[in-house]
Amino acid sequence: MPRVQLVGATGYGGLGMIEMLLQHPELEASALIARDDAGRRIADVYPHLHGRTDLVVQAPDDTSIGSDCDVVVFATPDRVSMGYAPALADAGVRFLDYSGDFRFPDAPSYAKYAAAHPSIGDNGHAAEALLDRAIYGVPELTDAIAESPIVGNPGCFAVGIILGLAPLFADGLVEGNTVTVDGLTGSSGAGKKPAAAQHFSHLNDNVVPYRVFSHQHVVEAEHTLGGLAGGGASVHFVPHLLGMTRGILSTMHMSLTRTASREALLERYREFFADAPFVRVLDTPPTLKGTAGSNFCDISLLTSPDESRVVVMSSIDNLLKGQSGNALQNLNLMFGYDQTLGLERTPIYP
Amino acid sequence: MPRVQLVGATGYGGLGMIEMLLQHPELEASALIARDDAGRRIADVYPHLHGRTDLVVQAPDDTSIGSDCDVVVFATPDRVSMGYAPALADAGVRFLDYSGDFRFPDAPSYAKYAAAHPSIGDNGHAAEALLDRAIYGVPELTDAIAESPIVGNPGCFAVGIILGLAPLFADGLVEGNTVTVDGLTGSSGAGKKPAAAQHFSHLNDNVVPYRVFSHQHVVEAEHTLGGLAGGGASVHFVPHLLGMTRGILSTMHMSLTRTASREALLERYREFFADAPFVRVLDTPPTLKGTAGSNFCDISLLTSPDESRVVVMSSIDNLLKGQSGNALQNLNLMFGYDQTLGLERTPIYP
Amino acid sequence: MPRVQLVGATGYGGLGMIEMLLQHPELEASALIARDDAGRRIADVYPHLHGRTDLVVQAPDDTSIGSDCDVVVFATPDRVSMGYAPALADAGVRFLDYSGDFRFPDAPSYAKYAAAHPSIGDNGHAAEALLDRAIYGVPELTDAIAESPIVGNPGCFAVGIILGLAPLFADGLVEGNTVTVDGLTGSSGAGKKPAAAQHFSHLNDNVVPYRVFSHQHVVEAEHTLGGLAGGGASVHFVPHLLGMTRGILSTMHMSLTRTASREALLERYREFFADAPFVRVLDTPPTLKGTAGSNFCDISLLTSPDESRVVVMSSIDNLLKGQSGNALQNLNLMFGYDQTLGLERTPIYP
Amino acid sequence: MPRVQLVGATGYGGLGMIEMLLQHPELEASALIARDDAGRRIADVYPHLHGRTDLVVQAPDDTSIGSDCDVVVFATPDRVSMGYAPALADAGVRFLDYSGDFRFPDAPSYAKYAAAHPSIGDNGHAAEALLDRAIYGVPELTDAIAESPIVGNPGCFAVGIILGLAPLFADGLVEGNTVTVDGLTGSSGAGKKPAAAQHFSHLNDNVVPYRVFSHQHVVEAEHTLGGLAGGGASVHFVPHLLGMTRGILSTMHMSLTRTASREALLERYREFFADAPFVRVLDTPPTLKGTAGSNFCDISLLTSPDESRVVVMSSIDNLLKGQSGNALQNLNLMFGYDQTLGLERTPIYP
Repeated sequence: MPRVQLVGATGYGGLGMIEMLLQHPELEASALIARDDAGRRIADVYPHLHGRTDLVVQAPDDTSIGSDCDVVVFATPDRVSMGYAPALADAGVRFLDYSGDFRFPDAPSYAKYAAAHPSIGDNGHAAEALLDRAIYGVPELTDAIAESPIVGNPGCFAVGIILGLAPLFADGLVEGNTVTVDGLTGSSGAGKKPAAAQHFSHLNDNVVPYRVFSHQHVVEAEHTLGGLAGGGASVHFVPHLLGMTRGILSTMHMSLTRTASREALLERYREFFADAPFVRVLDTPPTLKGTAGSNFCDISLLTSPDESRVVVMSSIDNLLKGQSGNALQNLNLMFGYDQTLGLERTPIYP
Repeated sequence: MPRVQLVGATGYGGLGMIEMLLQHPELEASALIARDDAGRRIADVYPHLHGRTDLVVQAPDDTSIGSDCDVVVFATPDRVSMGYAPALADAGVRFLDYSGDFRFPDAPSYAKYAAAHPSIGDNGHAAEALLDRAIYGVPELTDAIAESPIVGNPGCFAVGIILGLAPLFADGLVEGNTVTVDGLTGSSGAGKKPAAAQHFSHLNDNVVPYRVFSHQHVVEAEHTLGGLAGGGASVHFVPHLLGMTRGILSTMHMSLTRTASREALLERYREFFADAPFVRVLDTPPTLKGTAGSNFCDISLLTSPDESRVVVMSSIDNLLKGQSGNALQNLNLMFGYDQTLGLERTPIYP
Repeated sequence: MPRVQLVGATGYGGLGMIEMLLQHPELEASALIARDDAGRRIADVYPHLHGRTDLVVQAPDDTSIGSDCDVVVFATPDRVSMGYAPALADAGVRFLDYSGDFRFPDAPSYAKYAAAHPSIGDNGHAAEALLDRAIYGVPELTDAIAESPIVGNPGCFAVGIILGLAPLFADGLVEGNTVTVDGLTGSSGAGKKPAAAQHFSHLNDNVVPYRVFSHQHVVEAEHTLGGLAGGGASVHFVPHLLGMTRGILSTMHMSLTRTASREALLERYREFFADAPFVRVLDTPPTLKGTAGSNFCDISLLTSPDESRVVVMSSIDNLLKGQSGNALQNLNLMFGYDQTLGLERTPIYP
Repeated sequence: MPRVQLVGATGYGGLGMIEMLLQHPELEASALIARDDAGRRIADVYPHLHGRTDLVVQAPDDTSIGSDCDVVVFATPDRVSMGYAPALADAGVRFLDYSGDFRFPDAPSYAKYAAAHPSIGDNGHAAEALLDRAIYGVPELTDAIAESPIVGNPGCFAVGIILGLAPLFADGLVEGNTVTVDGLTGSSGAGKKPAAAQHFSHLNDNVVPYRVFSHQHVVEAEHTLGGLAGGGASVHFVPHLLGMTRGILSTMHMSLTRTASREALLERYREFFADAPFVRVLDTPPTLKGTAGSNFCDISLLTSPDESRVVVMSSIDNLLKGQSGNALQNLNLMFGYDQTLGLERTPIYP
């Protein structure tokens, strides 16, 4: 059974991968690596795992990144994996990265992303030569993941926007520069580190717009959608942090280059995603809770009365389809499994 | 001291007015009238009022609407006040209405609103002759409230949109047909009647888009903003119901007819609202919780890097500035008081 | 593969069973029966099931209860299954019931329960002759479920109290009449029907004590714990409804008949539950969220400084270990499977 | 108008006092002092105060504690005020302290509290000689606050427990050693500093028991209730942190020394609190939200069927009656005002 080495195992991103690997029939965790909590059982770090696993967190110094495994998963912040990448490439070890390090095919594209990122100072890429060997991991849009040595797992907001708009951009239906997106996210995307913005007394019952026009995930969404359109793409994006734990609901408005009925567009979406087991095109607006706990991306849309405009709404669980679930979907493809293996999860409702 | 007769006293809209009248130095409640709970003390209907008042709810049959009072406040659903209006007008009794009955100056405008309303079947107006004597009650935009015999209190979403966009429309800065608004609302706007959409197990941790492109409050927002612009106005609006109790956060995107800097626009907003004690123009994005429990409308904005687009965000407490608070502000004006009387409430935080 | 006929399929209790049967390797749903929503696809009733199943809800009149199946599961209110029970018994069809109908071995015990129930008027039992063939379905306390033709699935609060106190009662450690329990429950136990107590605007951010000293689940807890103690048992219980969706946290205080150290008691608990795969005895207090989405019952305890008193805390997901999960555990045993089959769910965190 | 110097102005405790002083007709803030955020406008620290005040936070080094004011309010952690106390006493400046420093009449009593406190290392008192000049500030139990130079404002849990049990202890109705209390608190009592226990993703939808049997507030509750009983008092207390922002709901169980009916006990409570404007004795169980935003303490009770036991429930807003509201009530008394001045706040509902 292929063995997965998990780096950055103790954050929420690592946790999601651990939980799914515990139940995966064809993949297993070979090592949990993290600076924080090294030496502790992961079930002591996260008591809800008690009785599910006895795995112990190892410090990065106590094990070699890339040794004794078939793939490395970096559930780490930006600019960590690029440091290990050259050695892994030399050793022929495949890897998947949760951060933005390998989401772009060239250094200038990466530099745009890095410049928009609130905590990246240096916009250069430390493993530039490997960028053209990496693939941006949206399985619904490419078959190349199966053969790729490096997969850049997409950002959470980008997943909801790209899947929500891909059919329209692919068909040239989007009037340039008219796309506005309001993204509503739960707190868990910010990770487990206590911070003022995620302090319970502040965030409960609250909605807080942030990084208006400047969120770095837009860069990858525009890059990908522009590629589908065979030209550029422009998305005006406002993220909002909500007093909720899980989920991203994206509401996307735009003018169409030609009128189209709601029925025709829904039909086109169903056709576009016919082979995408995790995309559900719904007749009614998706809800945040409708995907929570699952790897689904729910999408629906409505047109204006004159059919010149459309609103598309998408919902994902930010920690699953927006992060670890999508990552496992990619791992499945990398190892030749059905992409749904270990991911057949029904959303938790109510 | 002027006496206020409150019709529809036991809904959330009536409750808000009761609470404020209890502490108002210059207005008092003369009667609480409602079908539900008639005969009960309001403090038994709402136990948090225990010890604050001994007022008893009266059935509408047990008292005359408009008798023994200086003003009637209708905190009732659409098409209730229009039935009583002619008799009140004949008797010279002023009134303020929470519903859409008196928000429009003529029957055709009302008909557009009524057609968009999910529970109004008949689009005709039962007191058409009185419409031109009524004023749409946004105190920040008109001085006519003081003298008006009839005030139509605005819809909750409309308040946040109108105040957020008024300076831009007044200055002709809004590129036609480019305005998109995502409105995020707590549950309390739907009132106290149990319903599937407001069932706790369903709504908690949830976000539910609804009435996409078809919410009736847009009609009054477009009417008002179009009036400011000296032409029409078009707003593409998607309301979202959130698993929160109070507040409306509106995020409004549009193209500008000419470029403008963020600083210049903020300065213009501050000037526009210089005499509006409840509008706060902030340097940072407003938050849902930043206005909760108060009558404030917080507004801020950002421009795109090329200054051709702007995002305006506004936050109100939907039950106060979006309903009862704004209503009391109107009552203060109707009786010649300072508009802030009894409304000097600091938001509840945390 | 054994086939399960589900009666009362469209409530939260039925929903939980549907979701688990969809993923169960050795059981399948033969029919979903319900009065509400008959004729609709269950995935239209609950959109989060879209793409997971095409099963259609059938009216009870359109199918025979007990026909074409190997077991009937009644996810129905009190006093429904007792009406069908005699015919099922005659036909030799086994069944499991979610309600209190078959939780007691004799009519007088049932009558005590019925008298405490807020919506049972008649305390008589319509299938009294079958009571001694039924078993109370707490798999951690009995081996008889495997052979039983009728299983009465326990009440949600009862599960948390019984598992939390069973070792102490079994060992005679509980000082009579000193047990007080405060139970904290999410809203989902009240089901999907909109009601004032579960109205979002009322329940959000709220805690509401209810049925103080009089909740019917205490009757079955006292009956079961008294049986373990070889005498009576008395539990003074106050349930509290919380503005949360899932989970029951029970905090149980009592005096001990003899002093005992925390370590000794924890050791005893671990021994008592050594063969119970879903009971986790923790070193730290359990949390509500620590079991959400799983079939676990987490338990921990602390003693007073003089070791004469103990506080035991237990946490369950009220819809899983407190209802459908425990029911499936019972079904597994009824069909000779490992009790964990289809229930190996990790709690959802964060 | 008496001037209040506020030390520790930027925490939630200080914030509550600022908000109330802004609207108080007879008291005003002379200075806001805090280490954090010194030099900033308080309205920039807390944007919801924008437009309400231009006060600037001063560093403790830039002003003299106790100078230019009529009273000092220490909204500071334990062991801060005792350092300043001797100088203030020498200068004849009265003060009120939010911490445990002046809640006890003698050093041995304080030492018991300090020993139970999770962050106090040294159990000695730095201003022991002043303890007998201080009063424990529960205005419902003493008239001495008016004349006292030093007031120790009670702990939040202690307020709910003491008011809930005072009549029973005063009447000798409580059977010794049988009192168990489960306290349910919102997150705001822990203050504004980000921490893992208050991280939104962790606490949302969660209930977390903590400091079982060992919370320091029990020491002052036992001390006060024992004083009322003319003997000792013993309270077995388990606090629970809830995923809510505001409020403490305490559920208190005990055996009675003699039987008493619910009606008789409620009558006795109403008599006991006849002169206490902020205590509301209700016929139905209090709710967490029923007091939120107000200075009320709501209390109700039920007896067991044999009338040998009672459950008392109390609800307070932990930041108001549990902290700043009670503090202002004390300040009012210290300056000879009606205790309700500036505190006539209706709870926020829904």
